[in-house]
Amino acid sequence: MDNNGMLFLVGTGPGSLEEMTVRAKNILQACDTVIGYTTYVRLLSPLLTGKEVLESGMTQEKERCRLAIEKALQGKKVALVSSGDSGIYGMSGLVLELMERDSRSQAISVEMVPGVPAFVAAAAAVGAPLMNDFAAISLSDLLTPWETIEKRLNAAAQGDFVTCLYNPKSSKRIAQIDRAVEIFSTYRDAHTPCAIVRSVSRPEQSITMTFLGQLRDCFIDMLCLVIIGNSQTVVTGTWMITSRGYDL
Amino acid sequence: MDNNGMLFLVGTGPGSLEEMTVRAKNILQACDTVIGYTTYVRLLSPLLTGKEVLESGMTQEKERCRLAIEKALQGKKVALVSSGDSGIYGMSGLVLELMERDSRSQAISVEMVPGVPAFVAAAAAVGAPLMNDFAAISLSDLLTPWETIEKRLNAAAQGDFVTCLYNPKSSKRIAQIDRAVEIFSTYRDAHTPCAIVRSVSRPEQSITMTFLGQLRDCFIDMLCLVIIGNSQTVVTGTWMITSRGYDL
Repeated sequence: MDNNGMLFLVGTGPGSLEEMTVRAKNILQACDTVIGYTTYVRLLSPLLTGKEVLESGMTQEKERCRLAIEKALQGKKVALVSSGDSGIYGMSGLVLELMERDSRSQAISVEMVPGVPAFVAAAAAVGAPLMNDFAAISLSDLLTPWETIEKRLNAAAQGDFVTCLYNPKSSKRIAQIDRAVEIFSTYRDAHTPCAIVRSVSRPEQSITMTFLGQLRDCFIDMLCLVIIGNSQTVVTGTWMITSRGYDL
Repeated sequence: MDNNGMLFLVGTGPGSLEEMTVRAKNILQACDTVIGYTTYVRLLSPLLTGKEVLESGMTQEKERCRLAIEKALQGKKVALVSSGDSGIYGMSGLVLELMERDSRSQAISVEMVPGVPAFVAAAAAVGAPLMNDFAAISLSDLLTPWETIEKRLNAAAQGDFVTCLYNPKSSKRIAQIDRAVEIFSTYRDAHTPCAIVRSVSRPEQSITMTFLGQLRDCFIDMLCLVIIGNSQTVVTGTWMITSRGYDL
């Protein structure tokens, strides 16, 4: 039975409120309750006046999703927000999995609201590195076995995919990015252009343009995305560009 | 010398005007001239009243980019629009390559304005298939040799990437999608969930949920995106979900 509860899985874009879609903004403004990771929710605060706002910490993903479902079951219009897109290393999958296991969820309607993913904004910030086939790989081995990640790094490197690395390094995970560079270096030239984009689309955004051979010496942390070019990627002037192959 | 000409490479999102970012919308409204592929420009017409609007056909990419540069060199604020994101199989790379070859271009400023890519909207429309590592591959061999595309299909399939196929089939290119399915079938089960999303985010959007073993029998054309799940992708009820690996 429908209780009119609605759950919106909203991608709020990479950072700046301007990079949010019109639809995401309208939905946030129409919702009763907004739930998300503390840092992201605070970026949204100009839009949240008068709403029930529920923040939680980094490792509280399941709790956040369950809370969002409970609030929707109470008949509320709920936005569960993820930065970037909710379906790319975000909350969408977990919510849908939890709803499938809870027969009460049939009473609420759920809608995915796509956003500009962080890697897309990072690419735009450095030029046009994703003009040809690409892959995205998270180096976090909290939920995925490291052997699987290594297999993917090898496949992406071998297949000449421009590759975006999410979660490249944290204070506890420092060896993974070095291993990734090692793997790519067996297939790609040391002069392959790479970019590190930190805090993309936020006021403190910073960009490091470098090469595969130098990547290990660069500052990289949790707030960074790393883009490794393919065999057609060049740096010309200010921009990192992967040629699509037009005859110019 | 700066002539105040500005060139914005704008991703207008997958289709609906609501899926455009606030920034893209503001920039379109502030521009003098809007240039793009006929079909996309017409979708934007509610925003373009009173502007110089220059449309061109499907194969006129270079001409469009050159025209955009010329207009900016005349001191105009120009938006060159791509659907989805301008940096993903869009116009950004070509424009930047052309500008690098034309010293007059130093007089104009260029800015990339990211948008929600079509594959991200397609994923949101079917659930959450991109919750783990993924790849995007275009099956069009107009600009990329087919051997390279086959190499990437093999790599993506072997690496267990959720894979989005752009340009899966046209009236003239019909064998490529069959070959792609053949390649994936050597690495993945015939019951691997797949989705075909046609005209994503437009009023005529349609979705076909299927399996790798049946994909070849489904209707696919130029307006479709195909998403092939990985070994962790399931179809539960209405949704296609790739598990991220949380212990539920």
